[in-house]
Amino acid sequence: MWPPPFTTTAGTVRCGTEDKKSIRILSGDIVYAESPEKLTVLEQHYLIVRHGLVETICSVVPEEYKGIEVEEYGRNLIIPAFSDLHVHASQYAQRGVGMDLLLSDWLNQYTFPQEAKFADPDYAKQNYDAFVEDLIRHGTFHVNAFATIHRQAADYLFGRLEEKGLYAYVGKVNMDCHSPSYLIETTNKSLKETEKFLDEHQQAAGHVRSIIVPRFAPTCSEALLKGLGKLAARYQVGVHTHLVESKWEAAEALRLFPGYHSDAEIYERNGLMDNGPSVFAHVIFPTDEDIRILKKHRSIAVHCPDATANIIAGIMPLASMADSGIRIAAGSDIAGGHGIAVYRQIARAVQLSKLKELYEPEVGRTITLARAFYHATKEGGSLFGKVGSFEEGYHFNALVIRNMEDPWRRLSPGEQLERFCYTGDDRDILARYLDGEKIECP
Amino acid sequence: MWPPPFTTTAGTVRCGTEDKKSIRILSGDIVYAESPEKLTVLEQHYLIVRHGLVETICSVVPEEYKGIEVEEYGRNLIIPAFSDLHVHASQYAQRGVGMDLLLSDWLNQYTFPQEAKFADPDYAKQNYDAFVEDLIRHGTFHVNAFATIHRQAADYLFGRLEEKGLYAYVGKVNMDCHSPSYLIETTNKSLKETEKFLDEHQQAAGHVRSIIVPRFAPTCSEALLKGLGKLAARYQVGVHTHLVESKWEAAEALRLFPGYHSDAEIYERNGLMDNGPSVFAHVIFPTDEDIRILKKHRSIAVHCPDATANIIAGIMPLASMADSGIRIAAGSDIAGGHGIAVYRQIARAVQLSKLKELYEPEVGRTITLARAFYHATKEGGSLFGKVGSFEEGYHFNALVIRNMEDPWRRLSPGEQLERFCYTGDDRDILARYLDGEKIECP
Repeated sequence: MWPPPFTTTAGTVRCGTEDKKSIRILSGDIVYAESPEKLTVLEQHYLIVRHGLVETICSVVPEEYKGIEVEEYGRNLIIPAFSDLHVHASQYAQRGVGMDLLLSDWLNQYTFPQEAKFADPDYAKQNYDAFVEDLIRHGTFHVNAFATIHRQAADYLFGRLEEKGLYAYVGKVNMDCHSPSYLIETTNKSLKETEKFLDEHQQAAGHVRSIIVPRFAPTCSEALLKGLGKLAARYQVGVHTHLVESKWEAAEALRLFPGYHSDAEIYERNGLMDNGPSVFAHVIFPTDEDIRILKKHRSIAVHCPDATANIIAGIMPLASMADSGIRIAAGSDIAGGHGIAVYRQIARAVQLSKLKELYEPEVGRTITLARAFYHATKEGGSLFGKVGSFEEGYHFNALVIRNMEDPWRRLSPGEQLERFCYTGDDRDILARYLDGEKIECP
Repeated sequence: MWPPPFTTTAGTVRCGTEDKKSIRILSGDIVYAESPEKLTVLEQHYLIVRHGLVETICSVVPEEYKGIEVEEYGRNLIIPAFSDLHVHASQYAQRGVGMDLLLSDWLNQYTFPQEAKFADPDYAKQNYDAFVEDLIRHGTFHVNAFATIHRQAADYLFGRLEEKGLYAYVGKVNMDCHSPSYLIETTNKSLKETEKFLDEHQQAAGHVRSIIVPRFAPTCSEALLKGLGKLAARYQVGVHTHLVESKWEAAEALRLFPGYHSDAEIYERNGLMDNGPSVFAHVIFPTDEDIRILKKHRSIAVHCPDATANIIAGIMPLASMADSGIRIAAGSDIAGGHGIAVYRQIARAVQLSKLKELYEPEVGRTITLARAFYHATKEGGSLFGKVGSFEEGYHFNALVIRNMEDPWRRLSPGEQLERFCYTGDDRDILARYLDGEKIECP
C-alpha cells in the first residue's frame, strides 16, 4: 500500500499536569466503521483525544484523565468526518444546472465554458472560497480535487485548503487535444505549468499535497501523458483522473490510443501509477484488464452515485469490485454530482446498488449503509493517512451530528446515522473537529 | 376526466375600490409549466391574484390595478406549490430508516409495527402534526395521503389538514388478510370503519376529501374489495392504492386473485374506479392490460423515484406511459421514500429516467426537468382541481424561491429552478401562499 503522506509526531507521553492541556474528552453516542461489514456503535461512551489523535474510547473515564473537562454531547452522535475523493472544485459554480444533458454535451455546453473562466483570478477566488467553505459546512475534511488547467487558480485552491487545515490533494488539470481551443494548452505548456505547480508545492507544510491530473485520456495526447509520467517520477506524486466513466469515454480512449488494451493501461504504461496513489473516478464499465491493473497498484476507485446517474447513466459494479479487493471511496463529483454532501452519496450508493442488482445481477449486489459509510470515511480516508475512523492513532477529524429522533419515537444510533445520511443537512452538524481542535462553521 | 372536486366561487368582478382588497400583486421571475414540453418563464413580471385565483400575468401593471401595493420579490422565483400524490402520513416517523431492506422485509420489520402504534391517539397526533408542518415547510400544499387502519387517527389527520387549509385526499387504510394480526381488521370491521370515515367527512367544508384506500391487493380479500366498491358508489369517492409496485407485489396479487388478469383489473372489477379519481402509486411493472384500464379511467400513476430505488428496486416506465396518455404525478412516498420534499423527487425523476433508458431502452427515455416539474405541479395538481399552474383561474397556491445564483455567476430562472430541485431545501423557500393568502412557515 502506498505510504500515507501525512505522518504524525504524536508520541506516547503519559498524563502529567502539563500534558493534560493536549487532551480532550468527548462523550456521546459514538459511531464509526472499522470494516465494511458493520458499524461500530458505542452508546454513551467517552472518546479520548491526545495531541489531535484518538487515544481510546471507554465507557468510564479512567483515573488518569480525572480533572479534564468532558465535552458532553449527550445522545448526539460523534462520527468521523467525510472524505470526498473526486470533486471538481472549479465546477462548484455550476452545481445543479445543466442536468438534462449527458456527459459529452454537458462538458461542451456547460463545463468547458465555465472552467475557462478560471483564467480570471477573481472568479477563481470567489468560487474556490465558497467551495472550501461548503466543504467544511458539510463535514468533508479530506478532499481530492480537480482544479482547472489554470495553474495560478490551482495554486490559490491549494493555499486556501491549506489555510483551513483541510487534508487534500489538488491537481492542475492537463488537456492538450480534442477540447475547445479556449480550454487547452500546448503539450509543452501543459507540462511546464504542471512542473511549476509540483515544484511550488513540493515542500508544503500543511495537509495538502499535489497530484497529477490528466482530465482523461480523450483530452490528452500520448506525449502529454509520457511527460506527466516523468514528472510523477521526479516529484514522486500520484495520479487522479476519470476511468471508463461512460461508454463514450471508454470507447473514445481506446480509439485515440490504438496500441492500448484498456483505459487503465493508458495511465500505467505512461508511468503515472508508480510513484504515488492512483485514484480513478467512476469506473462504471471496467474490463478485466482495468481491474487487474487497479488491483496491482492498489488504486482507489471512486464511486460518485449522483454524478453517474446525472450525466453518465451508469452504475459502478461496486460490490464485485470490492470483492476483488479494489479499494472503494465516495465522491461528490461536483458538478456532475449536484451536491457537495458526501453523506448524501452514502444513501445514494445504497439506492444505486439495488438498481444494479436488479439490472445486472451478475455483477450487482445490494450494499448496506454500513458499507457505504465505510467507503466514505475509513476507506476513502486511507488516501490521506489515518483519518476516517476512531481506532487508536487516527486523527480526530470528526463531526457531532444532532440526535435525529422525533420526540415520539426512539431510534438506535445506527438508525440515526442512516436518517442523517438519507435526510440530513448541514443544520444537523452541531460541531466539527479537525486534528482534535473544534473549528467554526464558516 | 373526473370533475375536479374543488370548485371556486370567484366571479368576474371588476376593480372597484371595495374590490381592491381582494387583489394581490406580486412581482418577480415567474416560472411554471403549462405542459410537459417546456417551462413558462416570465422574468420581471407581475402576477395578479383576485379572490385567491390567478387573474393575469403581465409585464406592466395595467391602469385598473394602480394604487394596489406590489409585493416585490425582485429576482427571486415565484412558482406553483407542489402536489404529493402518494404519501403515507403515518410513516413520517420512520423516514430514512430501514432503508437496507426491500419491500416485503421492510413492511414486516419496520412499517407494520410502526403503523400499529397509531391505535394510540397521542402517538398519532404527534406524528401527524409534525407531518403536516413538514409538508407546509417544504411547499407541498396538495397531498393524497394514506393514514393507517385506525379510523380515529385518520379522522385526526383529515381535520389537521383541513385546519391548515391544505388541499388533500385522506384514506383510512383497509387490510383484512396476509398481514400481522396486530395490524388487521375483519372484513366486516374494515368496511364498517371505512363507512363511518366516509360518512363523517362527506360534508367536509374545506379542501380535504375522503378516498378509499385498500393497502394493496395482497392484503385485501375479494369480499373486502367488493364491499369497498359498494361504498365507493354510495359515497361517490375514488380509490388510492399501490399498483404493480414490485415484482413480488404484482405476482402476489395475481396469485391471490386467480380469476383476474391484471393488478388493475382487481380494482376495476370490484367497482373502485367508477365513482371518483383513481390514483395508483409506483406502476413499475405494468402489463398492457394495466395500461388499458388506467387509460380508460383516466387514472393517475404516481412516480415516487426515491421510494422505488429504496425499497422496490425498479423504475417506472414514465416516458412510455406518458406517451400512451396516462396522467403522471409525483409522490414522496414517505417512508419508502425518505424525504418529504417533492422538489427533490423532480430531480430524482430525471436521474432515474436516464438509468431506465440505459437499461430498458425499449420503454425508457430520458425526461427533462420541465417534464418532471410539470408532473409534480400541474398534472399532479389536477387531482385537486385548478392548482399547480399560473394560468388564469388557477388557485394561487405558490412559493417564492430565493434567487439561487452565486454572486459570481448569473443563472437563468429556469436554471435556478433546476438548482433548487437538485440542491435546494426549505431554507430556500422565502414565502408561501395558499389560496392567495400568505401563510407562515410552522
